[in-house]
Amino acid sequence: MTPKIDQFLRSEAPATPCLVLDVDRVEENFRRLQVAMPLARIYYAVKANPAEPVLSRLVGLGSSFDAASFEEVEACLAAGAAPEHISYGNTIKKEAAIKAAFDRGVRMFAFDSEGELRKLARSAPGSRVYCRILVGNDGAEWPLSRKFGCELDMARDLMILAAELGLDPFGLSFHVGSQQIKTTAYEAAIAKAAMLFTDLRDAGVQVRMINLGGGYPVRYRSEVPEIDAFGAAIMGAMTEHFGNALPDIVIEPGRFIVGDAGVVSAEVVLVSRKGEDDPVRWVYLDIGRFGGLAETEGEAIKYTFRTPHDGSEEGPVTIAGPTCDSTDTLYEKSNYRLPLQVESGDRIEIMSTGAYVTTYASQRFNGFAPLAEHYI
Amino acid sequence: MTPKIDQFLRSEAPATPCLVLDVDRVEENFRRLQVAMPLARIYYAVKANPAEPVLSRLVGLGSSFDAASFEEVEACLAAGAAPEHISYGNTIKKEAAIKAAFDRGVRMFAFDSEGELRKLARSAPGSRVYCRILVGNDGAEWPLSRKFGCELDMARDLMILAAELGLDPFGLSFHVGSQQIKTTAYEAAIAKAAMLFTDLRDAGVQVRMINLGGGYPVRYRSEVPEIDAFGAAIMGAMTEHFGNALPDIVIEPGRFIVGDAGVVSAEVVLVSRKGEDDPVRWVYLDIGRFGGLAETEGEAIKYTFRTPHDGSEEGPVTIAGPTCDSTDTLYEKSNYRLPLQVESGDRIEIMSTGAYVTTYASQRFNGFAPLAEHYI
Repeated sequence: MTPKIDQFLRSEAPATPCLVLDVDRVEENFRRLQVAMPLARIYYAVKANPAEPVLSRLVGLGSSFDAASFEEVEACLAAGAAPEHISYGNTIKKEAAIKAAFDRGVRMFAFDSEGELRKLARSAPGSRVYCRILVGNDGAEWPLSRKFGCELDMARDLMILAAELGLDPFGLSFHVGSQQIKTTAYEAAIAKAAMLFTDLRDAGVQVRMINLGGGYPVRYRSEVPEIDAFGAAIMGAMTEHFGNALPDIVIEPGRFIVGDAGVVSAEVVLVSRKGEDDPVRWVYLDIGRFGGLAETEGEAIKYTFRTPHDGSEEGPVTIAGPTCDSTDTLYEKSNYRLPLQVESGDRIEIMSTGAYVTTYASQRFNGFAPLAEHYI
Repeated sequence: MTPKIDQFLRSEAPATPCLVLDVDRVEENFRRLQVAMPLARIYYAVKANPAEPVLSRLVGLGSSFDAASFEEVEACLAAGAAPEHISYGNTIKKEAAIKAAFDRGVRMFAFDSEGELRKLARSAPGSRVYCRILVGNDGAEWPLSRKFGCELDMARDLMILAAELGLDPFGLSFHVGSQQIKTTAYEAAIAKAAMLFTDLRDAGVQVRMINLGGGYPVRYRSEVPEIDAFGAAIMGAMTEHFGNALPDIVIEPGRFIVGDAGVVSAEVVLVSRKGEDDPVRWVYLDIGRFGGLAETEGEAIKYTFRTPHDGSEEGPVTIAGPTCDSTDTLYEKSNYRLPLQVESGDRIEIMSTGAYVTTYASQRFNGFAPLAEHYI
């Protein structure tokens, strides 16, 4: 938690649940990433937190933007981003959304299928397109399965088709999974992409960009490698595979930019036990999986907590949200412990919750309004 | 799909994604349930669908309401419900919410812990309270784990404490899990509750109500027992265990009342394959897990689909939502098949989606607005 957030929580005691996000920390993270990967161009993954104060600060810093939808394109433009600094990075787009983005000046689009490529050729003619390839997600705490990307053979054929359709076969992209804690995941993916660069060059298609996606981790409950380690591993692999003929390098960090800039302030609604001798207390908060903490699904992302009783004796807990849905349980199997003194009415802070919280919140499940947001 | 919904979709072709719900079907389901369980008082589980047209139709039919939050209490009152017909059924409540409900006239509250009971004694003095006990959820497609309810020994002590605190120890409740397809689940739970009735009578506490919760299933992909079978099993078990001294019987159906009254109309955004020889197509819709279909988590609830090409040759598919989150995949392991002709731009209907869809929708994940709602 930054001193500014701590001060805000103490002086304002805002109604819970809410997110308090320190926009200066966003700037620090952006600059830290620039230093770690000076040759990469940063496209902030808007979906991580699309709030206007975040976007406009990043516009001021010269960031580019990775938009998941036309609505996110509009949010970037409204925050002052130039359309040439926006990439429409979702490989699944309605053709009307492609056209709307193209009409607003966006000229870079992702794809991973022939169907999408043909939509792009019709509705975003001449644009730069990049093909997402499937790579391993081993090491990622929020892995991405096979939903996005295609096999190398298909990617090769599609890039050739892109040129035939009048599009600019500009680049290749991959994603090693979110909250990726292994630097080697990038190395393996770069090797795979480099092979395809060569194949395509031999086929007469000169690819000029590699998009390394995001995934750079934030410290939650466990230590993660420093961003410098990722930068070194990535640049090492890039040099090994591309030598002096480095393509443009694009990265799409989301979590890394905003994750540790935000804190959710919540209230303990109830502390109980299921039986009189049950050693495990249930601690129910006024925010849960459907209030924004969606990434606790499967206990994947393990946030840390700050309570007013930290430092005193602790005991095992199950931590759950406030709704009448039992899947709205945050942590039951991850051996969480909280002070024995924690009680109903306590304020509790959930650390490093600046990413993937606000927009995941349900509109009114069980009648609960989405969490409030404070950008300071 | 009811003829009225079919007609609406054909004549209006509303923008997708949207829910179209036939309020007449809500009424039919309510009446069907009354016939199947004439001795039970129906408390509609508002969280299943809190839309005003649903609530006001049910008010007109004499329904009572099970509210999960003060906001849901307010929604019921706004729709014309009398406060004495509202039960505040969430066992996890902020004390301010208890007080607010009490101030609006609500006099029935759930609890499952000492902490909650003491809040009720302070902020809803003299109210009827009922204790939720833990029972098995075997047979439920959306089981409820241990988040709600307490062990029998604790329930016994808490009911005695309720009386000592000046509350009315009115009843016991349980929940056999949502989309429960085994009638025996209710029988086992009733037996358990009946034992506690006896214990408490011996301790001088006369319990007068049993709340059987909800869970009554809707037909999705598989056949489910008719509601009459549940009614017969439940009344058989009640008679077996309580004889002529039947307590008040409360049921809290949600899904059963609204589930098959609604249809989600969606659009196919993309159909693709991951490799050129991949037999499985990926079909991406403009609604997914974060757009309202949250109950597809773990592929628990298996909706059926209607396409413009039904009856033609089918092939295997993975069905996914439109966001850049790979957990936004609906069905990958459940052997779904769709017509080979399904293509980008097709309208597709997702059947029996009247329950647990609208309020689960994220407020704007990836920039996508929540689904529209049409009550007809």
